[in-house]
Amino acid sequence: MKLYESLAEELCRRIEQGYYQVGDKLPSLRKMSHENQVSIATVQEAYHLLEDRYLVESRPKSGYYILAKKSDASLPATTRPEQKPVDVARWELVLNLLHSHERDEILALGKGTPDVSLPTLKPLLKLTADMSRRADIGQLTYDSLQGCQELRHQIARLMVDSGCRLHPDDIIVTTGCQEALTCSMRVLTQPGDIVASESPTYYGSMQTVQALGLKMLEIPTNPETGISLDALELALEQWPIKVLQVTPSCNNPTGHTMPDANKKRLVEMANEYDIAIIEDDIYGDLAYRYPRSRSIKSYDTQGRVLFCSSFSKTLSPAFRTGWCAPGRYIQQVKHMKYVSTACNSILHPRAIAEFIAQGLYERHIRKCRTQYLRNRDRLMEWVQAYFPKGTKMSYPEGGFLLWVEFPKTIDALGLNEKLKQEKISIAPGILFTAAEKYQHCVRLSYSHEATPAIEKAIKKIGTIAKAC
Amino acid sequence: MKLYESLAEELCRRIEQGYYQVGDKLPSLRKMSHENQVSIATVQEAYHLLEDRYLVESRPKSGYYILAKKSDASLPATTRPEQKPVDVARWELVLNLLHSHERDEILALGKGTPDVSLPTLKPLLKLTADMSRRADIGQLTYDSLQGCQELRHQIARLMVDSGCRLHPDDIIVTTGCQEALTCSMRVLTQPGDIVASESPTYYGSMQTVQALGLKMLEIPTNPETGISLDALELALEQWPIKVLQVTPSCNNPTGHTMPDANKKRLVEMANEYDIAIIEDDIYGDLAYRYPRSRSIKSYDTQGRVLFCSSFSKTLSPAFRTGWCAPGRYIQQVKHMKYVSTACNSILHPRAIAEFIAQGLYERHIRKCRTQYLRNRDRLMEWVQAYFPKGTKMSYPEGGFLLWVEFPKTIDALGLNEKLKQEKISIAPGILFTAAEKYQHCVRLSYSHEATPAIEKAIKKIGTIAKAC
Repeated sequence: MKLYESLAEELCRRIEQGYYQVGDKLPSLRKMSHENQVSIATVQEAYHLLEDRYLVESRPKSGYYILAKKSDASLPATTRPEQKPVDVARWELVLNLLHSHERDEILALGKGTPDVSLPTLKPLLKLTADMSRRADIGQLTYDSLQGCQELRHQIARLMVDSGCRLHPDDIIVTTGCQEALTCSMRVLTQPGDIVASESPTYYGSMQTVQALGLKMLEIPTNPETGISLDALELALEQWPIKVLQVTPSCNNPTGHTMPDANKKRLVEMANEYDIAIIEDDIYGDLAYRYPRSRSIKSYDTQGRVLFCSSFSKTLSPAFRTGWCAPGRYIQQVKHMKYVSTACNSILHPRAIAEFIAQGLYERHIRKCRTQYLRNRDRLMEWVQAYFPKGTKMSYPEGGFLLWVEFPKTIDALGLNEKLKQEKISIAPGILFTAAEKYQHCVRLSYSHEATPAIEKAIKKIGTIAKAC
Repeated sequence: MKLYESLAEELCRRIEQGYYQVGDKLPSLRKMSHENQVSIATVQEAYHLLEDRYLVESRPKSGYYILAKKSDASLPATTRPEQKPVDVARWELVLNLLHSHERDEILALGKGTPDVSLPTLKPLLKLTADMSRRADIGQLTYDSLQGCQELRHQIARLMVDSGCRLHPDDIIVTTGCQEALTCSMRVLTQPGDIVASESPTYYGSMQTVQALGLKMLEIPTNPETGISLDALELALEQWPIKVLQVTPSCNNPTGHTMPDANKKRLVEMANEYDIAIIEDDIYGDLAYRYPRSRSIKSYDTQGRVLFCSSFSKTLSPAFRTGWCAPGRYIQQVKHMKYVSTACNSILHPRAIAEFIAQGLYERHIRKCRTQYLRNRDRLMEWVQAYFPKGTKMSYPEGGFLLWVEFPKTIDALGLNEKLKQEKISIAPGILFTAAEKYQHCVRLSYSHEATPAIEKAIKKIGTIAKAC
């Protein structure tokens, strides 16, 4: 064992034993070097190792801070969804969730809206205003069907981070990620077809499955490693699955990221069983670890992966600017995009392209990552402190969503109902499955700064849950 | 016969006899009063009567000008489409048309883009810029599912002009009219269902029919009065039609407006045969006559009419802001809207709402109407002068599209191909039908000012057509 490794081991022990608490700052490099009689470079390497293991986080110009640990004991088990294709319903519940966000006085802790108050977002609004004021004619006609050329160029550049090497012409700009998902699904399926997905999974894509008259087969999913490849393989043998829909990086609702090896294997299975994969990467750029993990698309050599994403979680959902990189299906998705909304608005895509080109996107994303990681740790602490004994939770590696599993006796729908009086809303777990599952689970968002008001709300949720 | 009526009759005769030519100014009220020894009020009433008959147009602060006459001789006959439901194809042709607009050097005379260079549009861009600069948080989150409340309020107000009395909650804001049409169609149909429509009809809604796996039954349509009610009734008896899709006011591609009596009868037939009507009103506010004609929706007492429109033709297509008033289907269309694009962008709808609230929309529309009417007359003159003998054309009562029927020997696709060398593109008639029809027809747009360059292009089209 090298010197920096044994130092790192020693620090790990101290963290485990509670010598350092979540949020504590590690001693400075100089101090640690002095205390342990090793070089500053050795301390630095030890700290990097802890960082790689997600035990500490480096905050620029400040130092290294202890992160919440991934505690296997508190992680939910691999899910066990219904083992047959089922119809999707739940629209009424989704509608309730959407309406809860429309009322300003509600603290909507279940919603998937990013923090749009960050100062690093401001320049984008200025760019938008300036472009609108310039008002050239080209800005007021129908956009090209594939969408803003400059934005597609910038998206191709950004996607290199996830291991994709695409040409701008491989990309179609869409009205948010939802349009990318729905157009992809429509191209790949006929009514009655079976779509496999993680479980729990995003309610928006489930509504697409519902609206298109498809059936949904949920696959057991591990809250750390994602969809179970063994279970998926069994399902592929048993059912005529047409499409696999997954959110493998910074998953919604659990925040997990599939290991690269699993992502690679998933593509191999798609090749073997001749199915297409819709990859939802909407939270992918918000991975806490840099560089971000590879996309499934990056392993795809046969054009089977339809990559869908948007700037709704990284910048703002109000811009309705997303994209699809649909591989071999590009012509069909283009047609569906035309049928769906004809073309995109011009102003927002242009402004976003300029924002990225000026390096402002990277700066903003760095800011988001730092803040969301800090918020995550506070929220996990609070859940640990205030929620009923036996509560488990996921360990998000990116994004701003936490999946919480209450003890089985707690009904999240009832809890949400009771929280109305407190002007708090959460996203009940049943929203994230087509079957009668996850009744005791909720999704919580931590995009907004972890203020005392949020702590109070979490405490309140815990108190009411304990009384359930 | 009253005095003003006999004066009007006399003036009609003079116009018919060519004493006054298209574009000529009528004598001033004072001069006419003096010449005919009648009061100025009488002359004014006579002029109003001529205006009502579309024989003259009043130009503010200038006087009364002679309009192009509706000449029955040059109007195309009622169409005779395929009398059975057929599959729609033609995507390649639509794609060609769309691509032709993407190249700046092409004079795209087939496109449906409004004149976005009018100064009355400028304040909207300023409003947009100001709102973006203010950048409140509410502007950056997910919009409500039904869309901007203020805009829905303004749309409800505008729709009073077409005889509709709606509540803002009866309206869903959409990503352009295309999303309204497609969501409506998806709610009403299952693959294999039959949709009836005018013939010729808009290629965009035909692509919806295609993408949804529907069949299209085109109904004989008169270029003056619209869809043949007798033919439609026969079709309703013979086929299990699910939906009727029509553009009854300022039709695309012919520009006709159905008489009110026919619109009313259409709703009665829908009630009788228990079908839904999708009413595309995207050009409706651009009627040359004020007040504009009533919508089919205004006769609907059973919630069967799904009214679809947008600001793409009246303001700019780049804003992607449309709406749907889906009657009894509102809950289902809301669901489809969610599946399609989740919600709308916030900036454009808000800016448009403010633009309307300040009375700037009305001012802009008045400007558009005046210009398009003037352009229409110039274009009709040029077509008359330069196109082959035997060419017929529609008589648009609003919007900016003219339907031209060449002699049968001329193939519009071939003509369009030859025009490429001249950097001119047109919309070949075959785009507007699912069957092998209208090969000798084209749609021409006259949204842009009738400059000598446009006259030259029309002349060129005529010359090449004559050589075909």
